[in-house]
Amino acid sequence: MNTQTIRVNEIFGPTIQGEGALIGQPTVFVRTGGCDYRCSWCDTLHAVDSAYRDDWHPMTPAAIMMQVEILSGHCPLTVSLSGGNPAIQPLGGLIDLGRKEGYRFALETQGSIARDWFRDLDVLTLSPKPPSSGMVTDWQKLAECVEAAGPSTQLALKVVIFDENDYAYAREIASRYPQQSLYLQPGNHTPPAPDQEDGVIDMAGIMDRMRWLIDRVTTDRLYSATVLPQLHTLIWGNLRGV
Amino acid sequence: MNTQTIRVNEIFGPTIQGEGALIGQPTVFVRTGGCDYRCSWCDTLHAVDSAYRDDWHPMTPAAIMMQVEILSGHCPLTVSLSGGNPAIQPLGGLIDLGRKEGYRFALETQGSIARDWFRDLDVLTLSPKPPSSGMVTDWQKLAECVEAAGPSTQLALKVVIFDENDYAYAREIASRYPQQSLYLQPGNHTPPAPDQEDGVIDMAGIMDRMRWLIDRVTTDRLYSATVLPQLHTLIWGNLRGV
Repeated sequence: MNTQTIRVNEIFGPTIQGEGALIGQPTVFVRTGGCDYRCSWCDTLHAVDSAYRDDWHPMTPAAIMMQVEILSGHCPLTVSLSGGNPAIQPLGGLIDLGRKEGYRFALETQGSIARDWFRDLDVLTLSPKPPSSGMVTDWQKLAECVEAAGPSTQLALKVVIFDENDYAYAREIASRYPQQSLYLQPGNHTPPAPDQEDGVIDMAGIMDRMRWLIDRVTTDRLYSATVLPQLHTLIWGNLRGV
Repeated sequence: MNTQTIRVNEIFGPTIQGEGALIGQPTVFVRTGGCDYRCSWCDTLHAVDSAYRDDWHPMTPAAIMMQVEILSGHCPLTVSLSGGNPAIQPLGGLIDLGRKEGYRFALETQGSIARDWFRDLDVLTLSPKPPSSGMVTDWQKLAECVEAAGPSTQLALKVVIFDENDYAYAREIASRYPQQSLYLQPGNHTPPAPDQEDGVIDMAGIMDRMRWLIDRVTTDRLYSATVLPQLHTLIWGNLRGV
């Protein structure tokens, strides 16, 4: 039995997945604490900045699954592993345990750290960070993450886009990985402060970027891309736990 | 060569698909004229009410594909066949012709008329109409439509929901077809008048129904459902041709 502990920031749901390949699908989120990146527009600083590490609780896979099963009413569904960067946590044991109970696992990470347990995921979303984040992509690491997906793992790439430079970066991703699904997501200039849930969202700005992105994708014939907003932001703003 | 004409109301795009299984994906729409239903909240009356039939132009498959290829820049993408009810039109020849050029075809219909050419579709969305529409489902016809999908046709069910009765109807669909993908979509109480594009959208009402639907689905553990709004309505309101 795997008792290696995982640093958990929050477990909540069921709600719907608001982004990417599983948009609209019921899920329980397990958000881990800690990240190797510091994106300028991070919308989950409470799970990234070590100033908040007192809120990251070490939990065993069994304790996490107990909580997931209570929330899901013991009816299996997709568990979304998020962060922070969940790839820095030892999640293999949790995935093994949950899959035995019929749960599916989706994980989103920036693609900076590959893990052998990626192959056991149902969905692996790699979300490399564009120039506006202030981070620099390690292409070799990203390639290792792509390679780490298993034969039955659905792989998706996702890029958050604020401006032309970010869009050019997304096109670079598309040309490196032409066979993979690519999701483009307009960025949110008004992410929540880590200790504040209800800041005003610049909804008009998000929708402007959505229209601009659709125009760019259709004008450039980038038909392999899927353009989707963060649905949870449109529905609930920056409210947490939904 | 198939020269049987199709009544076309509009051809537009590329834009993104705003609903259901292909949400966010670039597509060109071919909207046919004519419908065997008269839903109380129809949002495409200009393609349904025969008062507008002067705007429905008979076109051959070759003429339609020429227009699609101009719009797509001769780069194949998914063509969305919509209506009205596109199943009342002879679309088999168009699908054959387009597929030879590398185009994919998605069709949405209420499931009242099954066609043998459904098997050639890449995506078949059956959207049976709930009680609030004022229409009555012919379950035998719906079953025939489900059966008509081919082995490589992705089948999706979609139900528009305004109220508790509609939600109960969606659960009936889920229990009849537990193996199929089911999309739930909050209804729009403020569809456009057929000769007016820019009526005010009750965005708050749509979002209220979105939150309510997510609550119902998660409380009832209806985890097989996907809950998605009409993205194009959020982005563009009732504007046509986008």
